[in-house]
Amino acid sequence: MGAEYTLAELAARCGGELRGDGGVRLRGVATIQNAGPGSIAFLANPHYRKFLATTRASALILSETDAEGCALPALITSNPYLMYARVATLLAPEPPARRGVHPAAHVDPKARVAADAWVGPGAMVEAGAEIGARASIGPNCVVMERAKVGEGSRLVASVTLCHGVEIGRRALLHPGVVIGADGFGIARDKAGWFKVPQLGSVKVGDDVEIGANTTVDRGALEDTVIEDGVKLDNQIQVAHNVRIGAHTAIAGCTAIAGSAVIGKRCMIAGGAGVTGHIEICDDVTVTAMTLVSHSITEPGVYSGSLPMDSAPQWRKNSVRFRQLDSIARRVADMEKKLKD
Amino acid sequence: MGAEYTLAELAARCGGELRGDGGVRLRGVATIQNAGPGSIAFLANPHYRKFLATTRASALILSETDAEGCALPALITSNPYLMYARVATLLAPEPPARRGVHPAAHVDPKARVAADAWVGPGAMVEAGAEIGARASIGPNCVVMERAKVGEGSRLVASVTLCHGVEIGRRALLHPGVVIGADGFGIARDKAGWFKVPQLGSVKVGDDVEIGANTTVDRGALEDTVIEDGVKLDNQIQVAHNVRIGAHTAIAGCTAIAGSAVIGKRCMIAGGAGVTGHIEICDDVTVTAMTLVSHSITEPGVYSGSLPMDSAPQWRKNSVRFRQLDSIARRVADMEKKLKD
Amino acid sequence: MGAEYTLAELAARCGGELRGDGGVRLRGVATIQNAGPGSIAFLANPHYRKFLATTRASALILSETDAEGCALPALITSNPYLMYARVATLLAPEPPARRGVHPAAHVDPKARVAADAWVGPGAMVEAGAEIGARASIGPNCVVMERAKVGEGSRLVASVTLCHGVEIGRRALLHPGVVIGADGFGIARDKAGWFKVPQLGSVKVGDDVEIGANTTVDRGALEDTVIEDGVKLDNQIQVAHNVRIGAHTAIAGCTAIAGSAVIGKRCMIAGGAGVTGHIEICDDVTVTAMTLVSHSITEPGVYSGSLPMDSAPQWRKNSVRFRQLDSIARRVADMEKKLKD
Repeated sequence: MGAEYTLAELAARCGGELRGDGGVRLRGVATIQNAGPGSIAFLANPHYRKFLATTRASALILSETDAEGCALPALITSNPYLMYARVATLLAPEPPARRGVHPAAHVDPKARVAADAWVGPGAMVEAGAEIGARASIGPNCVVMERAKVGEGSRLVASVTLCHGVEIGRRALLHPGVVIGADGFGIARDKAGWFKVPQLGSVKVGDDVEIGANTTVDRGALEDTVIEDGVKLDNQIQVAHNVRIGAHTAIAGCTAIAGSAVIGKRCMIAGGAGVTGHIEICDDVTVTAMTLVSHSITEPGVYSGSLPMDSAPQWRKNSVRFRQLDSIARRVADMEKKLKD
Repeated sequence: MGAEYTLAELAARCGGELRGDGGVRLRGVATIQNAGPGSIAFLANPHYRKFLATTRASALILSETDAEGCALPALITSNPYLMYARVATLLAPEPPARRGVHPAAHVDPKARVAADAWVGPGAMVEAGAEIGARASIGPNCVVMERAKVGEGSRLVASVTLCHGVEIGRRALLHPGVVIGADGFGIARDKAGWFKVPQLGSVKVGDDVEIGANTTVDRGALEDTVIEDGVKLDNQIQVAHNVRIGAHTAIAGCTAIAGSAVIGKRCMIAGGAGVTGHIEICDDVTVTAMTLVSHSITEPGVYSGSLPMDSAPQWRKNSVRFRQLDSIARRVADMEKKLKD
Repeated sequence: MGAEYTLAELAARCGGELRGDGGVRLRGVATIQNAGPGSIAFLANPHYRKFLATTRASALILSETDAEGCALPALITSNPYLMYARVATLLAPEPPARRGVHPAAHVDPKARVAADAWVGPGAMVEAGAEIGARASIGPNCVVMERAKVGEGSRLVASVTLCHGVEIGRRALLHPGVVIGADGFGIARDKAGWFKVPQLGSVKVGDDVEIGANTTVDRGALEDTVIEDGVKLDNQIQVAHNVRIGAHTAIAGCTAIAGSAVIGKRCMIAGGAGVTGHIEICDDVTVTAMTLVSHSITEPGVYSGSLPMDSAPQWRKNSVRFRQLDSIARRVADMEKKLKD
């Protein structure tokens, strides 16, 4: 189903240095340990170097160092994982391009759908919405009033875009994504809470990928903004008026509270939290399950998770955490006494 | 599209004290820094006081203190944020009221749908379900057998109500919400796990808002209960037989385990966890990413997150956490020696 | 609506030891405190023993110890909770079996749907997909190309199965579940990130239950695997190439990062995190909100959450956490001085 290329053709298209027989024909990618004839494998993690001698792959993608003593035809590159991604993209079967509006879709006459876009069965496109060229609105997606989907973007299935949100070009939104639901705005009233109307929208840039069941809320007065090239994993919550800088990647189950501003090229690991109204500068890495409780102004790596232990050990130490201030004071006291 | 009011009319309807020209006409709300003519802005956070002198808003919502020396027409109030919410609600364009059953909806003949309710395209209403007056069942929602939706409630889109769940009046359920899926009930069996039937339901009170992709499970034998005025943000998990007291607000990604009972007027921040079978009294605040591991019997603020640090600093301290009990013992030993 | 059994019949079918009048007729299960005539209640938690004397249940499920001095007809068993689950399953009204393809479903002519399977309104079954005998594809579910659903499995509503994923027999997938969305695979490129094609699939075994809005990503090159009898609660994220061993149970909001391998019969509590590329052996229990940051090779219980405290206490101790390494060094210094 997929394409077939010679190794020389792959080198020409993907940019690696060809070593060995450029005429070998390749039809797919595989892991180095499970590859078979006709496939090209890659080596990025030294842990897998042991399979170099025995792999049945027809060709390899390798760093210069790993290439020494390797007899197989290869592409040599300083970044084998990236090269692998390019090769895999070339070799992978393209999902069939679909176009037209499925008879079981519901497109409002006041919506604009590009002639070569696709709207799948059960999908709704409401009045004033715009679906760009080659965009794909999968089964059971809901695109509400005046929402816009840019050229070549794909809503896989059961994605909801609320009224007026704008998605850039070449976006990929996985099933269950919700963009533009009301932000969590409530004002204390005598009787309980009074809802604060959420009048902003959401602007999502170009080349953004958003994972399954992730939610991005609309702004309260101004917009929530996801800049170009941002990659969001599954089950992430992005609150109202957050801004996520270009090319930042965030892993699953992370929660970003309202009005937080995250810089460009940041990497935030899974299960993390970002407090509202703080700012994270460019090029910051946050490790898993860390609560970013205040602004970060210096690039670097930040952490705040507790180390795991066997439960009995953890219990003993954990109890002491609640005595930590007292312990610190007693240490200072003793130091004073010892000094006197 | 929205309404237009004079400042005097807003004062009369929203209850603030009018100061300056009551005849100024207002068509919308805006942030103080980006407001333009015809809009009313508010000042609640002292951080934004600097924009008072230069704002282009036609009127302001201010506290008595901030109003001193402000030349613009204004509404004076002790709670500008609440007043803003009321004004914004008046000025915001109402979503158009829709009524009737869309031809692409699927309503079982044994369901009851109020004449002025709306059932959107792709929505399903199964046998025995009841949709109240002016309620709105958005596109692709599923209302299963015998589920009830109260007067004026709105299921935005792709919301699922499982069989028999009951939603009160004026509820707002955002896309992807699931109410009444089976609770996580499993009994150890030799071969693995035996499913415990989940025979209870879910009762949601009046004036409840539930954020995108939040889930509330049905009870095992009795019901899971969300009382009046509760506000739930996105991506929250409420397990079976939980009870959440009136006017409690819970932020995104928090997980409430089975049979936990949460009091009234509590505020639980994002990414928190509440252990099963415990009780939290009224008026408790829990800060972000705190695990409520035991019952709370006194109102107040509770915390349990680890402070973030640069990764090298964090690593040094984190390693010591696992020695904490030993450190505490050694401190006590030394104190004893010093005393002797 | 449900079935009616005598206590003797329940004993015969569910395996408990009958004590007292086996002829009492039972139509339902109830909690011991709220039971009425015609119902059978169980006692598993000693906390509820106080209701033994006053319960209005017609029969009870009890341990040998609790049965002493109990006058009501009873089933005696070493595991009352399991016995209750069996009895409740017998007595609970079966959801009505439905079959056939609803006229508002969209089944591709190249899909195969068993004659006694059900495809509900708004559900999509794409080309090459296979729906097994007695399987049930609820309203608004999407079963993409070549996906397979085994015999007797049930997708409740609005479940999405991406292309090629395979679900075993007797699975129960709750609303909003997404199986087989792309894993979070991105390679650093000069301009930002390059998407790594996700070419693997997801294989889900037999007797698996997956909670509302849980997501399981497809593998990068090989498959993500959920073995037989695994039980996943709501809002869980399972990343690409994870393997979860048979009969493991995972509670809500837990995140499992890519390529993690989890053993058999593990129990992972809610809000936990599992780091990528690590291994957890069989029979491990992880407590709530613990980050499993490295492999676990010994069965047992593991923890890593911070204890909750009142906010002022917590603040004092929390500040000291950042001095922990310094405190430890100072303690060692003093010990040395005292020894000298």
